[in-house]
Amino acid sequence: MLSLNSHPSGRHFLQIPGPTNVPDRVLRAIDQPTIDHRGPEFGALGRAVLEGAKHVFQTQAPVVIFPSSGTGAWEAALVNTLSPGDRVLMVETGHFASLWKKLAGRLGLDVDYIEGDWRHPVDAAVIGARLAEDTQHRIKAVCVVHNETSTGVTSNIAAVRAAIDRAAHPALLMVDTISSLGSIDYRHDEWGVDVTVAGSQKGLMLPPGLAFNAVSARALAAADTAKLPRSYWDWREMLTANAKGYFPYTPSTNLLYGLHEALAMLQAEGLPRVFARHERHARATRLAVAGWGLELLSLDASAHSPALTAVLLPEGHSADALRKVILDRFDMSLGQGLGKLTDRIFRIGHLGHFNDLTLCGTLAGVEMGLAAAGVPHRTGGLQAAMEFLARTPEGAAA
Amino acid sequence: MLSLNSHPSGRHFLQIPGPTNVPDRVLRAIDQPTIDHRGPEFGALGRAVLEGAKHVFQTQAPVVIFPSSGTGAWEAALVNTLSPGDRVLMVETGHFASLWKKLAGRLGLDVDYIEGDWRHPVDAAVIGARLAEDTQHRIKAVCVVHNETSTGVTSNIAAVRAAIDRAAHPALLMVDTISSLGSIDYRHDEWGVDVTVAGSQKGLMLPPGLAFNAVSARALAAADTAKLPRSYWDWREMLTANAKGYFPYTPSTNLLYGLHEALAMLQAEGLPRVFARHERHARATRLAVAGWGLELLSLDASAHSPALTAVLLPEGHSADALRKVILDRFDMSLGQGLGKLTDRIFRIGHLGHFNDLTLCGTLAGVEMGLAAAGVPHRTGGLQAAMEFLARTPEGAAA
Amino acid sequence: MLSLNSHPSGRHFLQIPGPTNVPDRVLRAIDQPTIDHRGPEFGALGRAVLEGAKHVFQTQAPVVIFPSSGTGAWEAALVNTLSPGDRVLMVETGHFASLWKKLAGRLGLDVDYIEGDWRHPVDAAVIGARLAEDTQHRIKAVCVVHNETSTGVTSNIAAVRAAIDRAAHPALLMVDTISSLGSIDYRHDEWGVDVTVAGSQKGLMLPPGLAFNAVSARALAAADTAKLPRSYWDWREMLTANAKGYFPYTPSTNLLYGLHEALAMLQAEGLPRVFARHERHARATRLAVAGWGLELLSLDASAHSPALTAVLLPEGHSADALRKVILDRFDMSLGQGLGKLTDRIFRIGHLGHFNDLTLCGTLAGVEMGLAAAGVPHRTGGLQAAMEFLARTPEGAAA
Amino acid sequence: MLSLNSHPSGRHFLQIPGPTNVPDRVLRAIDQPTIDHRGPEFGALGRAVLEGAKHVFQTQAPVVIFPSSGTGAWEAALVNTLSPGDRVLMVETGHFASLWKKLAGRLGLDVDYIEGDWRHPVDAAVIGARLAEDTQHRIKAVCVVHNETSTGVTSNIAAVRAAIDRAAHPALLMVDTISSLGSIDYRHDEWGVDVTVAGSQKGLMLPPGLAFNAVSARALAAADTAKLPRSYWDWREMLTANAKGYFPYTPSTNLLYGLHEALAMLQAEGLPRVFARHERHARATRLAVAGWGLELLSLDASAHSPALTAVLLPEGHSADALRKVILDRFDMSLGQGLGKLTDRIFRIGHLGHFNDLTLCGTLAGVEMGLAAAGVPHRTGGLQAAMEFLARTPEGAAA
Repeated sequence: MLSLNSHPSGRHFLQIPGPTNVPDRVLRAIDQPTIDHRGPEFGALGRAVLEGAKHVFQTQAPVVIFPSSGTGAWEAALVNTLSPGDRVLMVETGHFASLWKKLAGRLGLDVDYIEGDWRHPVDAAVIGARLAEDTQHRIKAVCVVHNETSTGVTSNIAAVRAAIDRAAHPALLMVDTISSLGSIDYRHDEWGVDVTVAGSQKGLMLPPGLAFNAVSARALAAADTAKLPRSYWDWREMLTANAKGYFPYTPSTNLLYGLHEALAMLQAEGLPRVFARHERHARATRLAVAGWGLELLSLDASAHSPALTAVLLPEGHSADALRKVILDRFDMSLGQGLGKLTDRIFRIGHLGHFNDLTLCGTLAGVEMGLAAAGVPHRTGGLQAAMEFLARTPEGAAA
Repeated sequence: MLSLNSHPSGRHFLQIPGPTNVPDRVLRAIDQPTIDHRGPEFGALGRAVLEGAKHVFQTQAPVVIFPSSGTGAWEAALVNTLSPGDRVLMVETGHFASLWKKLAGRLGLDVDYIEGDWRHPVDAAVIGARLAEDTQHRIKAVCVVHNETSTGVTSNIAAVRAAIDRAAHPALLMVDTISSLGSIDYRHDEWGVDVTVAGSQKGLMLPPGLAFNAVSARALAAADTAKLPRSYWDWREMLTANAKGYFPYTPSTNLLYGLHEALAMLQAEGLPRVFARHERHARATRLAVAGWGLELLSLDASAHSPALTAVLLPEGHSADALRKVILDRFDMSLGQGLGKLTDRIFRIGHLGHFNDLTLCGTLAGVEMGLAAAGVPHRTGGLQAAMEFLARTPEGAAA
Repeated sequence: MLSLNSHPSGRHFLQIPGPTNVPDRVLRAIDQPTIDHRGPEFGALGRAVLEGAKHVFQTQAPVVIFPSSGTGAWEAALVNTLSPGDRVLMVETGHFASLWKKLAGRLGLDVDYIEGDWRHPVDAAVIGARLAEDTQHRIKAVCVVHNETSTGVTSNIAAVRAAIDRAAHPALLMVDTISSLGSIDYRHDEWGVDVTVAGSQKGLMLPPGLAFNAVSARALAAADTAKLPRSYWDWREMLTANAKGYFPYTPSTNLLYGLHEALAMLQAEGLPRVFARHERHARATRLAVAGWGLELLSLDASAHSPALTAVLLPEGHSADALRKVILDRFDMSLGQGLGKLTDRIFRIGHLGHFNDLTLCGTLAGVEMGLAAAGVPHRTGGLQAAMEFLARTPEGAAA
Repeated sequence: MLSLNSHPSGRHFLQIPGPTNVPDRVLRAIDQPTIDHRGPEFGALGRAVLEGAKHVFQTQAPVVIFPSSGTGAWEAALVNTLSPGDRVLMVETGHFASLWKKLAGRLGLDVDYIEGDWRHPVDAAVIGARLAEDTQHRIKAVCVVHNETSTGVTSNIAAVRAAIDRAAHPALLMVDTISSLGSIDYRHDEWGVDVTVAGSQKGLMLPPGLAFNAVSARALAAADTAKLPRSYWDWREMLTANAKGYFPYTPSTNLLYGLHEALAMLQAEGLPRVFARHERHARATRLAVAGWGLELLSLDASAHSPALTAVLLPEGHSADALRKVILDRFDMSLGQGLGKLTDRIFRIGHLGHFNDLTLCGTLAGVEMGLAAAGVPHRTGGLQAAMEFLARTPEGAAA
């Protein structure tokens, strides 16, 4: 078997903002014999996960599950609802928003792109203004990223919904929740989202390989007239087969075992408690960053992500060199800067299957890495985080 | 954890023609912690599986690995090489050929479909004739299924290649090897195939969730001019990232662990021995069918599949009722009849991680099931298979 | 990782009469992180398995669990209840009875040994006669093997109990159920057994490494006066710690996880159904042996074991040569002849996690092996077994 | 499956001084199908682990492996070499030394017990003096604990050897290395140890369930005349069977798979590096304890254990209350005070499969726990440990 860790001893700290640490329970669930995807046992599994997934999206609408990465769910959202040349309004929150935009362009869509500085959330007022100007309703969809994984900035989806409503604009609302679902409060139904895009490898605590679309009735209606060619991603055959717990092509059976287990774990913990746990760990992390005297990438205090924290390095210091020291010396993987942030930031993932002491180990690795790499900083960051964690038990008001 | 088997004791016999029985070694490999898909350990894994996969396709050309089902690899083959309205020549070998045709139609391709009776392989002469008629080279691709999983009929790809060559036609050759790769001799390079389509859950002995395209230089060149919209399936970003062992979006890390292990197992056994093992088990199975006095679906003796055997029920008897008796009484899953063969046939998978005694248990289940379900037959089918297996050791000339 | 199977493909058939095939559910349960054996989670686990184990022994008495092989449980039974020089009455049912006798001798006990021919069960009348002669009650214990794993002969424990009672003799009754517990009806309380000896690796479907003593009140009282030196095996500290779910020294935590799962599986199937399943498979096996024209080792039809079947080879043929052919050609392990039966018999295990098709594969392996090894036999053994299995569903009266 | 952790999220910190955190590689190795313990694959496994184990004991002598807890290996050491009434010299280093003494007494040995305060290592001079007084050589064995798990004090075995040699006394030297083997430099041959006692669940990184005796030629000779009754623990049949890789009774097959993997991991890291890693983590831990202003139980700086650290609570504070807060709030198990140290100390295990960040998480849990439980202390303990770890890379001179 391929040796997966160059460190001789101890458990790797996987603190990128996804894929996250997969719980042993989930890995063991995946490690069961594959079954007949057309047999009765599979049907029961299929019905259970299709129904259970709705809970995490806080929806009554159908949730479609693809054997694909999250990128596939981006594509699925667009090809099911739009036609070549359709205009979509997208917002540059960071690297992943820019990738989604690039994908839309490749599919032949006409992207109206609201530029951003990668340090702020979506500005709902700007969206509202664009929609108000669009009196002919050429914009068919508004696409935003709930939690921008490349920057650690979370946008207010309810505000986006309100802006669309105020403009009385018929555009569909599509939201990428790849790094927020199961970590940050997200309400598909309440916020009137038409297509929610998600993946398995973040808050859902699974390995990568499953992607999701939660689909509103309006989105489903749009699928009947949308003209972008599609087959693999088509919702309609999927939903027909899903009705009995099956899939139109071979699903990723073993990852569905894992999904079943992960949904049970989230249900047992309870979503409010899950969200509070992420908030608490994010706050502790930001206290550590402040303690080190380093700068958060996120500039809007109301938009700091509960799932990950991006940290800017002092001018003239290489984030990638720091990450390499931390990986080599302390066996921890941190997220790199992507796109225009390459080498400028590192990202600490504190989402998914996680707890206080793993967070402390993580912050210790950063603090020792800063010292080992010669990055100017103050000590005491972890100390500040610990004081917060010790005096603020889980479940207490943060 | 969801209980996956309604039978209280013993191991389920998964004898559908895929997904196949996943070896414990592969399941345990998958059951390892997910790692950073951008870190150095991942790069080593990625390079190893991308290189190792070539061996199974018998190619020096690049092999692209998608996180998707095999259906995705069908779509990828088409969208990377073709433009809207392009004509493709397809051959109706059975249900899966018809699904691929349907998919092509949805993508806006113009399918020239050579009809078939689902009991014979591809007739290379007919392909040759169509191409010869196509003097303006409007046909851009010839798409055939190597081993039709719905019928147990294997087609001669070398003959198709020869027919194309004789016609001196520039059409690309695309071959679906979903249920042949790793089970039946298949030679991407020698047979001049441009795109080979494959999946993880058959001869590769993995759970479903990975799909493959082996891509010739001509196919890659076609990708530069092909105009079907594509992003997720695009080979070009994939190959750029693959050069260093990485992927342009999050790959299905844990299934890649399994792929690494499965490739090692195939390499250790040796492809010639793997192919001979499948041939031998298929022959034993046909001896059993003959012993029972039942009819093979496959009518051309030179095209009987080494990977699965489809058996017709006597008129007036329900194959699905038989399969239900066998599942309920003997805890074995057999393949159902698909499309127009629904309820008329059952399919015995004898591919992947398999051996003589599991085959005997499988054939015993069929023979006892025929008795229990009241299907007219002779006893002695398994006996005939056993006599063949006993006097023909693995490795002896079959 | 050490490669554990020289065969390149397919699942090994482990058809020795133990260790038996461990269900995937049990292996996965064992594959969980080890926990603090003094913490609250462990206490809950300990209480659950200590209580659950009683059900399988059909007792209300305490069941002691040792981290050891079954041999340790033999030793524990004796050292807890007896003093140096004590006389014990033992019965030569086969190799394992002779090993237990040897062990008793090493501990300084005086063994009164009723000889046997290894082809018959315990004769309760002979035991009764010996006890009747022992008017001074020098015999302190009667030790018998319920199911002699070396011969496939099962003895009637209720009859032994009745013989002791008729003799009005105070000797303790100790019974080895290593290869019967969880496979053959066994009633610690109803049959008035004082110490039941068992192991994990047969009907309990676990890997080897746990051993058991079910202990009656009389046996426990004997422990207070018994003078054989003991510490590791001492019941008293064990029972004190067990009261709260803990153990006096570090228990085999991960095997206890497996025990928890295995007990749940046995409970779900239901003991009566488990026993009937074993009876049915044993009967099918004997029909196969008769079909081959071979001789059962067991000569008393009322004592044929439901758990395994020992088969004599025709004079002049080597059972070990046959087993080697079967292992090399068909990847199946069968039990060897032990002690004076070396090379004369082979033993087919049909106990534990098992079902009809695995039995058929097993019998196919024997039948093909007989042919391949040139052992004179008739074909049709498996055919006879299959006819029985097909017409006698599980749950029907056998 | 029983839920093993009351905490809803994240990985439990198992920081008792054993059982230690079992590496995933080892758990997965154990999670393989059980094989025939009399077949050829098993023989290869048996030979590999019996040979490989010698390396960890730094011996050429045979190593016997029992399916038992470490307590069994204590008993095995004594019953194989001694006769009833034999005198043994034992040293009260702590709770485990006192348990071994109790065990010896139960076996009928005459223990000459050198008392101790549980805060110092073995005093070799006192042993030497006792032996010098024993001119009639009534003392048959000297039994010491290398690393006293209950106190975190390590004794100098070379010094004990030298004292015996100086006294020219023929007593056997027996050493308990249960919590040192594979963590602290230990040399069975060089130090002239006759019987080394060990277990699987500490530095060997396995679950509990295997125990070891490394046996010198003198010890083996003693076994021929020793008169304590024994059977399960008898070395002689064991060594006879071991010669070909087998065992006289069913071994704990699946734990042996794990042993094979664990030995490969230790060999790959290299024993000197393993020992240095433990020393470094112990030093960091002591810096943290000093930083908190708490008192080490160990009073002799040259005897501080590299494997665990025992910390005294300020008078009037309950260690068990602290441990409960830490378990409930931070999901970490720490070792409790045993025997007369109950509720007075807690023990931090930093042995086995371990690394810097897990140590930091561990120390963070202690520091936050001290705060949460209201135990008087200074902050900054972890900070001191981190500064040491950051400036002292693994492999640098500590």
